[in-house]
Formats: sequence, C-alpha cells, structure tokens
Amino acid sequence: MVALDANGADRGPRNVAEGGLRAGVPVTIFGPAAELEGFDGVVDAPVAITNDEDPARAVRAKPDASMVQAARAVKDGRAGAFVTPGSTGAALAAGLFHLKRMRGVHRPAVAVRVPVPGRAVLLLDCGANVDSRPEWLVQFAYMGAAYMEGVHGVKRARVGLLSVGEEPKKGTDAVVEANRVLRDGPLNFAGNVEGGDLMRGQLDVVVTDGFTGNVALKTMEGLANMLVGALKTEYTRNPLRYIGAAASWPVLRSLRREFDPRTYNGASMVGLSGIVIKSHGSADVLSFRNAIRVGLIEARKGVPTQIANLLSAQLA
Amino acid sequence: MVALDANGADRGPRNVAEGGLRAGVPVTIFGPAAELEGFDGVVDAPVAITNDEDPARAVRAKPDASMVQAARAVKDGRAGAFVTPGSTGAALAAGLFHLKRMRGVHRPAVAVRVPVPGRAVLLLDCGANVDSRPEWLVQFAYMGAAYMEGVHGVKRARVGLLSVGEEPKKGTDAVVEANRVLRDGPLNFAGNVEGGDLMRGQLDVVVTDGFTGNVALKTMEGLANMLVGALKTEYTRNPLRYIGAAASWPVLRSLRREFDPRTYNGASMVGLSGIVIKSHGSADVLSFRNAIRVGLIEARKGVPTQIANLLSAQLA
Repeated sequence: MVALDANGADRGPRNVAEGGLRAGVPVTIFGPAAELEGFDGVVDAPVAITNDEDPARAVRAKPDASMVQAARAVKDGRAGAFVTPGSTGAALAAGLFHLKRMRGVHRPAVAVRVPVPGRAVLLLDCGANVDSRPEWLVQFAYMGAAYMEGVHGVKRARVGLLSVGEEPKKGTDAVVEANRVLRDGPLNFAGNVEGGDLMRGQLDVVVTDGFTGNVALKTMEGLANMLVGALKTEYTRNPLRYIGAAASWPVLRSLRREFDPRTYNGASMVGLSGIVIKSHGSADVLSFRNAIRVGLIEARKGVPTQIANLLSAQLA
Repeated sequence: MVALDANGADRGPRNVAEGGLRAGVPVTIFGPAAELEGFDGVVDAPVAITNDEDPARAVRAKPDASMVQAARAVKDGRAGAFVTPGSTGAALAAGLFHLKRMRGVHRPAVAVRVPVPGRAVLLLDCGANVDSRPEWLVQFAYMGAAYMEGVHGVKRARVGLLSVGEEPKKGTDAVVEANRVLRDGPLNFAGNVEGGDLMRGQLDVVVTDGFTGNVALKTMEGLANMLVGALKTEYTRNPLRYIGAAASWPVLRSLRREFDPRTYNGASMVGLSGIVIKSHGSADVLSFRNAIRVGLIEARKGVPTQIANLLSAQLA
C-alpha cells in the first residue's frame, strides 16, 4: 500500500490519483474528496500545506493536512511509502516529525537519479539541506551506496564527491575533509569529481551538499529543456526543415525516451526511518505513476533497513 | 598589444600562437621559442607552471615562467591584457601578485559568458574562490553589472542571485544576507534565481560563490557534450537514419553555431587592476582567437576602470 498526497500538484489532485491507478499498486489517496469522485481509496483531506508556509510549523499546526496524514499512514504501518507533489521542505518536515530520522543519521538527503544513458547516477543531496558539513557528506556517500545496492542491485557502487577539481585538496574545507575520511574508508570511492563527470557514465553515486546539488540538478533540467526548445525552433524555421524533422523523428524519439525526466520522477528522502518520495509538482499522470513505483520498489526492498544496516556497520 | 602565455595548452604552444595570428591583434607570445619557429613577437619562455604546483608558491618561485612574464607585461604597460590556457589558480595568483586586487575588492571572480540564445548570461564566480561570504557575493553582482555594461553595452543589467528557491529567505546564510543587501541597493536586482533560470534568457548576470558556479558551469558543459554525443550515436545507429542526419544538417549547424563553446572561450578574472583572460586548456585555434579577442575588447573598453568606478560609487 502506498499513501498518496493528492494536494500540491500543478494539474490538480485527479492527476495524482490517475497516476496511482496506472501504477497498478493499492493506494490510499489523501486529498479533497470533492475533486476525487470516482476514485477508490480516497480519504477526504482537503487541507494542504502551501509553499508560502514555514514547513516545520505548518506540519505541526495542520495535523489534518493531506501530507501529514500520508506521513502518519506510513508511521502507523498502514502504508509502506508516501508520495507527494508538495514542497520539498514540507515533505521533509513531515518525514522528520512523523517518521523520524534514522538512528545515527545527521541529516536526511534528497536523492535523485540523473538520466545518464547506460548508467544513471544518483545525485544527493539535491536540497534537503543548504549547509555543508564533512560528516554529512560522508553519510550521504554511505546512504547513496546503500540505496544503489538496495534498489538497483549495484554492488560496491562507485561514489564520487563533487568538487572543483580532482585533486583531494580542491574544494571547500568540508569537501576536503570528507574526501580524507572517504579515501580511508571502505566504500568504492572515486575521489573528487567535477560537474562534467555527472554525465560521464563512470559513477553510480555523486555526493554533494544540498545547495550545490539543487543548483546542479535544476541547471541540468533547465539546459535540457532549453536545448529541446531550441531544436523545435530550428526545425520549424522554414518548411524545408520539416523534412529534417520528419526524418529525424526516430532519433528524437529515442533520445526523448532516454532522457524523459518523467521516467526519473520521484526523489527519495534518504536517512528517514520510512519512505518519502517527492514528485515534481508539475508532473503528469505518467510521472506520478513512476514516482509511485519508486516508492513501491523502495518499500518492497526495505531500503531504510538496508541503509540503517550499512550505516551501523560504519558506526561500529 | 595582448600578452599570450603559450604554455599549458593541451594541443601545444603553436595552437595558441596560431590563435593570436587569427585574432588580427598585435601579440607578444611568451613560450618555448624552439616550438614557436615562424611566429613573430615570440619571447623565449620555456618555463611553465603546472597544475600540480601550489599556484601562489609557483608564481613567486618562477619569475621566468611564461605566465608570470605575461602578467608582468600587463603590469608594465607593455600589454593591455594577458591570455593564458594555464591553470585558473595560477592565472589568478599571477594576477593577484603582479596586477593586484582592485582597491576595495574583497576577492576577484572568474566570470564566464554562458551561451543562452538571444541573451548570453554572465555567470560569476566560476571558481576563483571556494568559500562564500555575503559581501563577496554583493561585489560580484556589482562587478558583473559593470562588466556587462562596459563590454556588452547592457544598461542596468538584470542581476540574479543563484539559490535553491526564489523566496528571499531561501539559501545559505551568505545568500540570504547578500539578497537583503542587494534588494536594498541600486542594481537592477531580480532576487534569488534557480539553476533553471540560467537558461531562461531573462537575466544578464547570475551571481554565485565559486564552488557552486564552477559545478554549475561544468555540469552544463558536460550535459551539452553528452547530448551531442547521444545525438551522434542515434543518427548513426542505422543507415535509414542517415537521411534524418542529412536533412537535419542545417538545423544542427544553426544549433552548433549558437551553442559552440568555442565562441564563448575566454573567462575574465574581474576585480583585478588589469585584464587576465583564462582560456580552456583544451581549446583549438578558433577558441584561442576568441579568448584573445575578449582580452582585446576588455582592454579597449577599459573594463577594470569601469568596474572600479562602479565599485567606488558603491563604496561612497
């Protein structure tokens, strides 16, 4: 069972519910029943947490909010994961308040799979935190490796630490110190890597602080969108070019399939004692389906337990 | 006159010298004369500063290094700018040691024009520093705006501050404080912007710390290269697709012209009392030509003076 928060989606709650149907998983939908007629498993929860509210305060002040109810469903064991298109801050706050931090974890992180052909790479933290401390970065490395093994069956995941140069002394003090600790540790550590290495297909996990990770992720999304837009403009500039567009259709379709961000929708909040999946707010039905499937897979594979085991081995 | 450092280029010193010829500017070339036969204006300077050396120490210890001689040529007024394919750290150290920081400037920054169709955006800092302080970010905003006005004639440049959300409270403490200062200041300030806004064509300048800027820039370069590679793979997958490739030729050519990183080669170190241009080490002749032209234009327009004027107006 997956708990769905149907509030906070740009295209409305029915889109989220439709994604739940398509995922082929039993779901409980927390959202405004009035807008969700015809769907099974709806719990009326019209109250939403908005982007303008302070996340921690809103989660405490609104126990009936759909997101909070979804988090409680996971806490009480009624659901194996909760999936929300709401704000990252609120999802994190709901996770911290109701599911709690995993024992020994300094900070949870948002982990996103970046679509690199042949070898998707897990980037974390993509925005759960804005500050950076060496011990957080080290834990992100462990959690990322455990995630890739637990969910994607990658043994000894290759882990890179994002910096401004490959030499171990390059980067902020936090990065230099995290490099030193990871270098001496048991992980399959690739050392410092640079922004361009994210796409090079040599890594399974890239670790960075939440500020840098968020900027890098959104920069990638922005650039990919811009290039697609530029391609469209060029192809429609004059009728002769329609031939090129038509003849290129199979190519563009393959590329699109490979890079379709909808396939990769569903960021995981790792480091919590329960599964929280954040979907893009602008997601369509297919995207929601994929985010829900991420939650289902993590629940089946018991990802929090796997991460806890690797971390306790580290702490031991 | 532009001073060229011919050491440090992946394709050797002749490539740099050839770029100088093509730029149609009088140049002095500091490099190994034995490898530069046939070029005019060569000063024999076979000593190079390598990537493995500590930049500041190397600049002091090797007064005869080609890069140091090029910096001194600017200091002594024999050249209006120096252009180098060597390491960013060494170029910065040579600039700081011989040209000095501009009065009142906390830290110089590496400024790079990012190719957004219709409205290139100046991103700074792309790696002169790894730390972040609010007053540095504020100065980067002023220097970036002065640069865009001085070099590209953009009046009241629109300046964004890179963060993890548009709300003024989003981001690290340094970003939140810089936002507060810039919001109350005289610049045309767009507030916080996100990674995706870099490509949206709404901004002239995007300000960030050198760590984040470096990661964002290299992430963009990496993604663009990966997409071009993927396009090639798809177009050559089977002979039928060659038709698409041929018919798409004008489109791909336009795109390539618009996004060709060679056109944008030449990062400026702003905040020094002299002009230092850092070229990609992997640059080809055309790229070097463009980097040299950037140096020439900045020299003609007196960019350091323009930046100094705007900063002293700020300090007044």
